[in-house]
Amino acid sequence: MNYSIIVYILGWVLNIEAAAMLLPCVVALIYGETAQLFSFLITVAVSFIVGLLMHLKKPKNTKFYAKEGFAVVALSWIVISLVGAVPFVLSGDIPSYISALFETVSGFTTTGSSNLTDVEVLSKAALFWRSETHWIGGMGVLVFLLTIVPMVGGHSMQLMKAESPGPVVDKLRPRIRHTAVILYVMYLVLTVVECILLLIGGMPLFDAICLSFGTAGTGGFAVTNAGVGGYNNVYFEMVIAVFMVLFGINFGIYYMLLTKRFKEALKNEEMRTYLVIVTVAIIAVSLNVYSIYGSVGETLRRSFFTVASIISSTGYGTADFNLWPGFSKMLIILLMFCGACAGSTGGGMKVARIMILVKSAFTEIDHTIHPKSITTVKMDGKKVSGETVKNVRAYFILEMMIIAVSMIIVSFDNFEFAVNTTSVITCMHNIGPGLGAIGPVGNFADFSVLSKLVLIFDMLAGRLEIMPLLVFFSAGIWGRTKRKKDSKESRIIKKEKLI
Amino acid sequence: MNYSIIVYILGWVLNIEAAAMLLPCVVALIYGETAQLFSFLITVAVSFIVGLLMHLKKPKNTKFYAKEGFAVVALSWIVISLVGAVPFVLSGDIPSYISALFETVSGFTTTGSSNLTDVEVLSKAALFWRSETHWIGGMGVLVFLLTIVPMVGGHSMQLMKAESPGPVVDKLRPRIRHTAVILYVMYLVLTVVECILLLIGGMPLFDAICLSFGTAGTGGFAVTNAGVGGYNNVYFEMVIAVFMVLFGINFGIYYMLLTKRFKEALKNEEMRTYLVIVTVAIIAVSLNVYSIYGSVGETLRRSFFTVASIISSTGYGTADFNLWPGFSKMLIILLMFCGACAGSTGGGMKVARIMILVKSAFTEIDHTIHPKSITTVKMDGKKVSGETVKNVRAYFILEMMIIAVSMIIVSFDNFEFAVNTTSVITCMHNIGPGLGAIGPVGNFADFSVLSKLVLIFDMLAGRLEIMPLLVFFSAGIWGRTKRKKDSKESRIIKKEKLI
Repeated sequence: MNYSIIVYILGWVLNIEAAAMLLPCVVALIYGETAQLFSFLITVAVSFIVGLLMHLKKPKNTKFYAKEGFAVVALSWIVISLVGAVPFVLSGDIPSYISALFETVSGFTTTGSSNLTDVEVLSKAALFWRSETHWIGGMGVLVFLLTIVPMVGGHSMQLMKAESPGPVVDKLRPRIRHTAVILYVMYLVLTVVECILLLIGGMPLFDAICLSFGTAGTGGFAVTNAGVGGYNNVYFEMVIAVFMVLFGINFGIYYMLLTKRFKEALKNEEMRTYLVIVTVAIIAVSLNVYSIYGSVGETLRRSFFTVASIISSTGYGTADFNLWPGFSKMLIILLMFCGACAGSTGGGMKVARIMILVKSAFTEIDHTIHPKSITTVKMDGKKVSGETVKNVRAYFILEMMIIAVSMIIVSFDNFEFAVNTTSVITCMHNIGPGLGAIGPVGNFADFSVLSKLVLIFDMLAGRLEIMPLLVFFSAGIWGRTKRKKDSKESRIIKKEKLI
Repeated sequence: MNYSIIVYILGWVLNIEAAAMLLPCVVALIYGETAQLFSFLITVAVSFIVGLLMHLKKPKNTKFYAKEGFAVVALSWIVISLVGAVPFVLSGDIPSYISALFETVSGFTTTGSSNLTDVEVLSKAALFWRSETHWIGGMGVLVFLLTIVPMVGGHSMQLMKAESPGPVVDKLRPRIRHTAVILYVMYLVLTVVECILLLIGGMPLFDAICLSFGTAGTGGFAVTNAGVGGYNNVYFEMVIAVFMVLFGINFGIYYMLLTKRFKEALKNEEMRTYLVIVTVAIIAVSLNVYSIYGSVGETLRRSFFTVASIISSTGYGTADFNLWPGFSKMLIILLMFCGACAGSTGGGMKVARIMILVKSAFTEIDHTIHPKSITTVKMDGKKVSGETVKNVRAYFILEMMIIAVSMIIVSFDNFEFAVNTTSVITCMHNIGPGLGAIGPVGNFADFSVLSKLVLIFDMLAGRLEIMPLLVFFSAGIWGRTKRKKDSKESRIIKKEKLI
C-alpha cells in the first residue's frame, strides 16, 4: 500500500472541501449569522492548512493500483464526512457530533435521511451546507479525484471503477480528465436549469438553490419540515419530479444527445427499461391510491412525484406513502432496490444490474431445460460477458448480506419490523425515507448511536457500490506492498471487475 | 417430452396416495366418523382406479430425461395436493376447496401454515390426514419416485436431483433404490422413537402420532389450536425440540453413524455450522427475551423450542414470538432464510447454500484486493467447483425474485408490511408462522384466493427447490421431443446443476 500517495490525495480532497465550504460562509454573511460564519471559517481554515501540509510535497512513489484506489475512495468519503460535520457542531446547529455526522454522511452519500426532528431551527448557512453536500456527493468524489489523481501521474481508471455511480462506466471520451469536465458541466447546467425553472415559478432563491442541489444529487434534504409538499405548488412539484427522473438517467445518454447521436441515445436499453418501470409504477400506484385522492389529477400528481422521488433515490416527499395501501407501499420498497440508471447520480442497485440479474435468471431456466443450449445475456444487442454476470450476482449477494447483518443490529433499537427493515433498505440504497416512524413525515432521530453508525456504514457502502468499503475494512489491504511481482498484473484491473 | 411415461408414473403416485389414505380411513373407523370414512374411501377408490388405468400399460418409450424428471416431480406434488384436498371438502371438514388445497399443499410441502381459524372442529380423520401429509411430504415424493421410476428402466438420477431436499445429494449407496429404502427406514425409525418418547411422557396416542408426523416432516401442523404449547409440558417440548433439530440434519450423517464412520460424521462442516447457528441463536434470543420470562429455565425453554422450530422449518409454537423484542423477531426471520441442512427434511435455503454464498462472497473481496490470487471456496476440505458456486448464486437470485413478485401480489390484501413480507418468506421456506396476524397464534384464513394461490406456488417452489416448478411452468418444456441429437448429452445432467 502506497501510503504517501493516499495522504497526498486526501490533502487535495480536504482543500477542495474547504473551498466548497466557502459558499455557506457567504450564506452566513448574507443572513448575518455570526456563529455560523465563524464555525465554517474555522473549519475551512483548519482543513485548508492541514490539506496543504498533506499535499505540499509531491510523493516520489506515484504507483497507484486498485488497492490504493479503493482506500482513497473510501477514505475520501469518510474524511469529508468527518470534517463536513464539524461546522454543524461548532455553530450549535446540531449539538451532537454523531447526529451531525449522520446528517453529513446522509448528505454526501445523497441519501437524504435526516436524524433531525426540526430542520427549521437550523441556520440558513447550515441548511445550505446540508443541501450542498448532496450536490457535491451527487457526482461523487469521482470528479474530485478524476482531476486530482492524474496530477500525480497515477493510473486513475481504477478510481473510475471504484467510484462511478453504476456498473457501466461509459467512457465518454478516452481521456479521463476531459470526461470529468464534461460530466461536471452537464451536471452544472442541469442544476442551473432546474433552479431557474423553480425561480420562474416564484420559489425563493434560497429554497430554489437548495432544492436543486438536492435534486441534482438525488439526495432529498429540504429546507423546511414540510419538504417539497409544503409549498403546495403543482408547478414546483412537476419541475422537481421531472428533474428527479432526469438525474436518474445515465449521463452518457446526455453526452450522446449533445453530440447528436440521438438514435443511439434513444435505443439505450437501460434507459428505456428505467422509463418503462417509472411509467408502469406510476400507473400501478395511481390505480391503487385513487380512492384516497378522489380525482385523477391529484392522484397522478402524488404518484408521479413519489415514484420519481423513490426510483431516482432522491426521497423528496409530497405524500405520506405510509397512509397508502399495502400494494403501493410494497412497490415503493421494491423500487428502492431497483434504483436509477448506472452512470447517473441515483442510488439503488441500478436498473442495469437488475436487468442482468433477471435476464441471467431466465437463461438459467433455459439452460436447465436444454443443457446443451448456450444462451447468453445481452444488453443493447451486445453479449454481456460471463464475468460481468458473475460480478453483478456477487454484488447482489454482498448487498443482501450487508442488509441482513445491518437489520439484525438495527433491530436492537426495538422499532417495529417495518422500521427495522426499511431503515436499512433506504440507507443502503441512498433513498431517504422508509416506512413507519422513518416515513416521509418522520425522521431517524430516535435511533441509537449504534444504529446510526450501522446506517452510516450502509449509506457509504451503498454510495460506493459496496466493494471499496468492504475492501477498505478488510485487513488484507493494509500491509506494505510485498507483491512486487504482481504489480503489472494488478495494475490491469479486470475491465468489469467492479460491476 | 415423453408424455406416456409421465402419465404412467403419475398413475403409480396416485395409487400410493390412495394407499396412504387408508390410514385416515382406519382412524375414521376407530372414532366412528362415518362421513369422513366415506369421504376418504371414495377418494381412495377413485384415485386407485384412475391411477391403475394410468399405469396399467407399461409405456414402450422409457426415455426419461431431465425435462421429464422436472415435469413428473412438479406434477406429482400438484396432483397429490389436488387429490389430497378432496376428502376435506367431501366430509365437510373444510368446505372451501381452495382452503382445503392450501392446507394440503401446506401439509405435503411440510410448511405447516394453516388457513383454518379453528382446527379443533376438524374430525380426527381429517386431523390425522393433515399430519400424515407432513410425514409423506417430509422425505418427499423422492421416495415414491425412487421406487417407481427404476421399474420402467428410467434413468432416475435426474429425479434425485430435482427432488432431494437440499444441494448435496449424498450418494449413500451407488444403487438408488437401495438408498431410498435406507432413507425410508431411518426416517421411520426416528419417527417411531419420537412417538414412543412422547407416549412415555403420557401424551395421548393420537396426538403423539400426529405430532411425530409433523416433526419428522418438519411440518408443524398440530391437533389443537394451542399447538405444542397447549400441553404445557416441558418434557414434551424438549423431546419435540430435540427431534426438530435432529430432523434438520442431513440424513447422510445418520447413515455414516449407522456404518460406524463416526469421525467423518462429526467432521461434517454443514452439520457443525448448523449446530453452531442453533446454539448461538438460542443464546442470543435468550439474552434478548430474558426480561419477558424472568427465569433462566423458562427463557431457555422458550428460546430453544422456538429456534429449533424455525431453523428446522417445522413451525411448532410454544411462545408467541410476536411479543418478543425486535431483535429476536429479526433473528427468527433470518433463520427462516437459513433453514436446515441439505439432505434433511427441513426447508429454507439450507445451511450448505448459505455457507457457499458467504464463503464465495469473501473470496470475492479477496480477489478484488489481489486480482491475481486464486481463492476457492472449500467445504469439508474439498474444493467447491465454480459451477456449484454459480448454481447456488443463481438459486439465491431466483428465490429472491420469486419472493419479490409474490410479496407484491400478496400485498394487494392490504395487511400490514410485516404480514405481507413474512407470509411469503415463511411459505417459500416451508416454515409455517410469520409475524403479525400470521404469527404462532394466528393463521392464514383471511388471505384472498389470489394470495393463497401465490402462497401455494411459493410453498411448492420452496419444497421443490425452485427449478422443477419454474421449468414446469415455462413454455419451452412442453413441446414434443425434437432435439433428438441432444438426447445423449441432455441425458447426462451436469452433476451439480440443481444445487
